[in-house]
Amino acid sequence: MRVALILEYSGERYYGWQSQPACISIQRELETAISRIANCRVGVVAAGRTDAGVHALYQVVHFETPVQRPMSAWVRGVNALLPDDIAVLWAAEMDETFHARYCAIERRYLYYLLNHPIRPGVSQRKVGWFHKPLELEKMQEAAAMLLGEHDFSAFRTAECQAKDPVRNLTMLEITQNDHFFIFEFRANGFLHHMVRNIVGSLIYIGHGRYPPGWMQLLLQNRDRTLAAPTFSPYGLYLAGISYDARWNLPSFYQSPLATMMLNANRSLIKV
Amino acid sequence: MRVALILEYSGERYYGWQSQPACISIQRELETAISRIANCRVGVVAAGRTDAGVHALYQVVHFETPVQRPMSAWVRGVNALLPDDIAVLWAAEMDETFHARYCAIERRYLYYLLNHPIRPGVSQRKVGWFHKPLELEKMQEAAAMLLGEHDFSAFRTAECQAKDPVRNLTMLEITQNDHFFIFEFRANGFLHHMVRNIVGSLIYIGHGRYPPGWMQLLLQNRDRTLAAPTFSPYGLYLAGISYDARWNLPSFYQSPLATMMLNANRSLIKV
Repeated sequence: MRVALILEYSGERYYGWQSQPACISIQRELETAISRIANCRVGVVAAGRTDAGVHALYQVVHFETPVQRPMSAWVRGVNALLPDDIAVLWAAEMDETFHARYCAIERRYLYYLLNHPIRPGVSQRKVGWFHKPLELEKMQEAAAMLLGEHDFSAFRTAECQAKDPVRNLTMLEITQNDHFFIFEFRANGFLHHMVRNIVGSLIYIGHGRYPPGWMQLLLQNRDRTLAAPTFSPYGLYLAGISYDARWNLPSFYQSPLATMMLNANRSLIKV
Repeated sequence: MRVALILEYSGERYYGWQSQPACISIQRELETAISRIANCRVGVVAAGRTDAGVHALYQVVHFETPVQRPMSAWVRGVNALLPDDIAVLWAAEMDETFHARYCAIERRYLYYLLNHPIRPGVSQRKVGWFHKPLELEKMQEAAAMLLGEHDFSAFRTAECQAKDPVRNLTMLEITQNDHFFIFEFRANGFLHHMVRNIVGSLIYIGHGRYPPGWMQLLLQNRDRTLAAPTFSPYGLYLAGISYDARWNLPSFYQSPLATMMLNANRSLIKV
């Protein structure tokens, strides 16, 4: 039987999604909990492999299991065994052609940035932080240059394993609410560190170190060393994965502000 | 010289505000950092002594120091020495009649509750959680019975050191946003565990274990053992302290939703 799950987690304690020797990972915690419910060793595949410190509001995974369990066992049973910073929100049986990663059409990331002279305290490790004033319009002008299908080599790490650096960025919207900026990214896929590298370069533009047109140059030169350093993981949230409608996954919340603040995905997922 | 500070912190790692032997406390972290800037031993007094796990969006403290330092030293200098879950937002010199605790006229607490069958994951230790459906109207009806000056013995712990159990509760508003409830409390002062005990009893009423009128009985009987157990500390935020206008402290943010979500107090505090 193939099962799909939607989960949320706080990434601050983990070395990332992926299991690595001697490192605490979300994948390992989830596989351990599912394996106990299934009573045999189960491996899971995720739609997006988030990095160390990165959070998820809507991550999708699938796994294969020989045992039949009610869907509530894959939600409540697994949640009872998971650490308190990971929670399964939804589970459903899928046919064997469903693949959390390869069937994903679009991925959505949100970046939450506190723009204030004083670093975060109560929301530490839940937001990124930049201390100098940022100009929204300049960042929006630069963001528009990234929309569409491009070679995003300027914004990928040396360790990125993707064969093809071309991605189709369908949305990059930036909104401001007092001292708080939210960046919303949607694309068919993202390269390793792509969101955090773009956010870093947008911040360079927002506080006037480079003009908005610098973004066009970065994109054209395809040289990672010209762009800004990778920005903090703590503001980054995997916030949605889209699939063909026939898979019937519950939709994710559309408002970036509501998503983080109100645990709003929960309103859309029937339990 | 007497100095007042406004600070925010995330309480999840601490045994509470107050220093105790062999326990990590917010008071001790703050005193250690201030003492290093002052170059001598400094003790601080807080407006509200929050419990283990309780957060603050707007806590006020004062201290006495023989040294003159620019106000930026008490903000940026102290922040550079504090752990990342405590931040000083504002500092000002006060005359020696200012006392963070005794001059406070009103205190404001917010309680953030996730009401959903599935426990929090990404916002774990930042919200309280209740799994059964709650009825807003019933809780509001019960809350209204607590307004005004009452003996709140029914909602104080055995360890509460206050001589007088009478407090004047000037606001208890409950708002709902999908699966999210926010309780706003304002009073001249609060007894030990008073907010969390009232929230626990409101939840009993909200899911139908007792009718709204039960709150009146609890209040009249003044017997702690009749009320609900103390609710989780993780949803509780000290969110504002009011003083006479002559002290010129920046006002705190009035919207409970915006306060937590947008670090909105920062908009009101000039840096």
